Amino acid sequence: MTYRRLIDINCDMGEAFGPWRLGGVDDADLFPLITSANVAAGFHAGDPNHIDRSVQLARQHGVGLGSHPGYGDLQGFGRRTIKAPPAELMNDVVYQMGAVREFGRRYGVPVRHVKLHGALAVDAAVDEALSEAFIELLRTYEPDLPALGMHAAVTCRIANEKGQPYVREFYADRGYDKSGRIVFARQVTRPDPEALAARVVKACQEGTVETVDGETIEIPFESICFHSDTPGSLDIIKAIRAGLEQVGIKVVPFSEVMASV
Amino acid sequence: MTYRRLIDINCDMGEAFGPWRLGGVDDADLFPLITSANVAAGFHAGDPNHIDRSVQLARQHGVGLGSHPGYGDLQGFGRRTIKAPPAELMNDVVYQMGAVREFGRRYGVPVRHVKLHGALAVDAAVDEALSEAFIELLRTYEPDLPALGMHAAVTCRIANEKGQPYVREFYADRGYDKSGRIVFARQVTRPDPEALAARVVKACQEGTVETVDGETIEIPFESICFHSDTPGSLDIIKAIRAGLEQVGIKVVPFSEVMASV
Amino acid sequence: MTYRRLIDINCDMGEAFGPWRLGGVDDADLFPLITSANVAAGFHAGDPNHIDRSVQLARQHGVGLGSHPGYGDLQGFGRRTIKAPPAELMNDVVYQMGAVREFGRRYGVPVRHVKLHGALAVDAAVDEALSEAFIELLRTYEPDLPALGMHAAVTCRIANEKGQPYVREFYADRGYDKSGRIVFARQVTRPDPEALAARVVKACQEGTVETVDGETIEIPFESICFHSDTPGSLDIIKAIRAGLEQVGIKVVPFSEVMASV
Amino acid sequence: MTYRRLIDINCDMGEAFGPWRLGGVDDADLFPLITSANVAAGFHAGDPNHIDRSVQLARQHGVGLGSHPGYGDLQGFGRRTIKAPPAELMNDVVYQMGAVREFGRRYGVPVRHVKLHGALAVDAAVDEALSEAFIELLRTYEPDLPALGMHAAVTCRIANEKGQPYVREFYADRGYDKSGRIVFARQVTRPDPEALAARVVKACQEGTVETVDGETIEIPFESICFHSDTPGSLDIIKAIRAGLEQVGIKVVPFSEVMASV
Repeated sequence: MTYRRLIDINCDMGEAFGPWRLGGVDDADLFPLITSANVAAGFHAGDPNHIDRSVQLARQHGVGLGSHPGYGDLQGFGRRTIKAPPAELMNDVVYQMGAVREFGRRYGVPVRHVKLHGALAVDAAVDEALSEAFIELLRTYEPDLPALGMHAAVTCRIANEKGQPYVREFYADRGYDKSGRIVFARQVTRPDPEALAARVVKACQEGTVETVDGETIEIPFESICFHSDTPGSLDIIKAIRAGLEQVGIKVVPFSEVMASV
Repeated sequence: MTYRRLIDINCDMGEAFGPWRLGGVDDADLFPLITSANVAAGFHAGDPNHIDRSVQLARQHGVGLGSHPGYGDLQGFGRRTIKAPPAELMNDVVYQMGAVREFGRRYGVPVRHVKLHGALAVDAAVDEALSEAFIELLRTYEPDLPALGMHAAVTCRIANEKGQPYVREFYADRGYDKSGRIVFARQVTRPDPEALAARVVKACQEGTVETVDGETIEIPFESICFHSDTPGSLDIIKAIRAGLEQVGIKVVPFSEVMASV
Repeated sequence: MTYRRLIDINCDMGEAFGPWRLGGVDDADLFPLITSANVAAGFHAGDPNHIDRSVQLARQHGVGLGSHPGYGDLQGFGRRTIKAPPAELMNDVVYQMGAVREFGRRYGVPVRHVKLHGALAVDAAVDEALSEAFIELLRTYEPDLPALGMHAAVTCRIANEKGQPYVREFYADRGYDKSGRIVFARQVTRPDPEALAARVVKACQEGTVETVDGETIEIPFESICFHSDTPGSLDIIKAIRAGLEQVGIKVVPFSEVMASV
Repeated sequence: MTYRRLIDINCDMGEAFGPWRLGGVDDADLFPLITSANVAAGFHAGDPNHIDRSVQLARQHGVGLGSHPGYGDLQGFGRRTIKAPPAELMNDVVYQMGAVREFGRRYGVPVRHVKLHGALAVDAAVDEALSEAFIELLRTYEPDLPALGMHAAVTCRIANEKGQPYVREFYADRGYDKSGRIVFARQVTRPDPEALAARVVKACQEGTVETVDGETIEIPFESICFHSDTPGSLDIIKAIRAGLEQVGIKVVPFSEVMASV
């Protein structure tokens, strides 16, 4: 029996800034291969020109548009925590959600999800007050908008408790510890696409993943996440898609994944 | 016969940044006295916390919410031109419109207008390509959203040509030249509230204004604009309102002004 | 017997940004009343125009010039911790020290000290690694430049251990706990200038201060620090200077204070 | 007879920002091949971490350190003019010069030159007031510090008039018009390294260059400039060095070039 016959694939997009690019892959090559895009909104990456391009690419490829709010830390790419009261951080989140949504309005592309970025997601995952503020914010004015994130995050638990839709992710290019949390590696080495693809396929078939310590744990998810700045990301996503196709798992928007359960 | 029996009053709001304030007046004291608020969106002034506050104040006082996009020039308060292609500047405008609208969504306050700020407005007023880009942008996805601005601006002419709603302003605290354009004074001195009020009342009654050279010109408008950072702004707006009341001119949202014509 | 017959007074200066000001006092009114200025360098406050003005004022009034590096958090005025590796933060410190020093070069004003600002100072005060990185940085290329800060800070201890000059401050407008650390109050109320002055004079005479809990503790210091954005700051500093004069304590640069011991 | 038997080679360095890079070449590969580095100071590119690295690389390779001030336009990479008064822009220049110099102090590397970046250089080249402000600034506190730039720039003329040292550049990877000014191409195509090298060698031998219109003009210079973000820049600089070596032209710091004349 297969855990997932249908699966969504999400990727962070528009993580450029001005003339600068991150990683060697052009987003335009990745869009045809994914079903959900998390678009950087100018705080940790992105600027109005890049958001505009990302939203146009999402429309062109029929990819689900999501906003990807992060800490206001451009130099640190949103990977450095800024210690601010949750209420202030939620104002930052609203601001960034508005930016992406407005470009969506411009091109007739509705926003389908929101996903916290980098240190903001990592912090929320273990910070009750921050997760509470985030989910409460969505309850207030976006009660039907799914948040994307880790199953093991406090954010997921609070979303479930309060009734906010939540799409759980499987991280194709990150290691797991036995609690189901991601293990961050400082130096990102070029991973083997085939190995990653096999790991993803196994997760889809069995709903499990092997941790960095060799243990096998259950890992429930509706979406596969990979990162465009992981070295070799284009080969990785192609290998994943080929792997999924081979075993008959279809890549579809997460709304279909959830409807099929 | 009176030129205007009904008139709107608009004011730039949320022109703070972080812990810093501009001028000595608290926006909370001005909101009860106006009908339209142009909210700074973080490029020339404002940040998510200040936008949040401004939108809540707009809701509380039933004031029409508008976005106030400017150049991305925080240090220069948007008063320094940034030479960028109009298409890029329009991406900046979309981004800023989205920021204000999203806080509006949060509190159930619809966006009623858009007004270009500072050097961006001044540049557009004489730059065909920039005005064209701005009005075209609105035609594309906000064909019913009024733009606020000078009657003498190229922007006004293009809006009329293309059918975009346009609300013309009378600047209570700025001098005019004979072309109907604003004359910028480097050093802002504390103006006499009664004199400004008399000038506004006369403009409403006769549709005219005296230029800095002493000439009288026609000046069509649907909204009075004054600036919160003009020294003595709170006294000025109170004097204006008292003056208008005395002659029976009612302060109402610009939609009512335009419907009454 | 008096603890201090000579004392330095330092104040944070140039804490403006673009058109915005903090507090109601003009720095130009404070410069004649102090002996050391800590100039904001553009990360938590300040911009090149304000630094230029501050350095010119320091020259004009013969006030000791210091750089005042903080977190790169303009919106939060450097009061929000940014979790970055100490080595990166030290690069930020070098950058900010260079900015102030260069304006000093422009006007022939040497840099006399460095003082960490806001959350960066508060964090360093309890963070061994951060204080170590800061003092090591100074050892490397500024071994004779005094750092200003709290006596109770880890930074002070490490400076002493390593032989870096360190000027200890008495905070005129902040409360103390019994460990000699500052107690932050969220809401800054307008303090009574005479009461603050009496407290400062007593500290200078007896080397002690009463904590927020009413206990009396020893508080060694060579400089009095007060903040220009404390409500009524101009009255406070005038009252302090009058109080000191009355009991014959002279306000002089900290180099003289230290030479006299 | 050869125009130049000795020549300097300068390159813009540290044009990264946070996690982002420009072009595909690592500065570390270029430093061994040049004699002068223009280090971005955080306004159009660069941040404290990148400046720190650039200055360390300059020391390691014995490359002359220069500051490279630009407009405060990170998103536009300093290629968009910001219309500000020259006096304000000079404050920006001082600030940026201080940043680079301080890292130089940290590592014992003196600053050898200053070069305006991007639109600031282009604007100064034709703007009398801006060039005047810049050269006057240097006269005031850095009368011996050479400025690098175009021979055809107003800046060069004013530097000569006022006695400020000025190092003229030959742009290896840019086209010339007959006035000796650079012709900007929107789309940068990958140039042929051998062709560029031949052009550079010819310029060194004959002191002339062929314009985009096929005319030959005189082009006096003491330094060759090439850009690391020109596609294939590493191959280009290697070809240039090989070409120069072949005809016996030695690459040396510009101070030696100027001393040899």
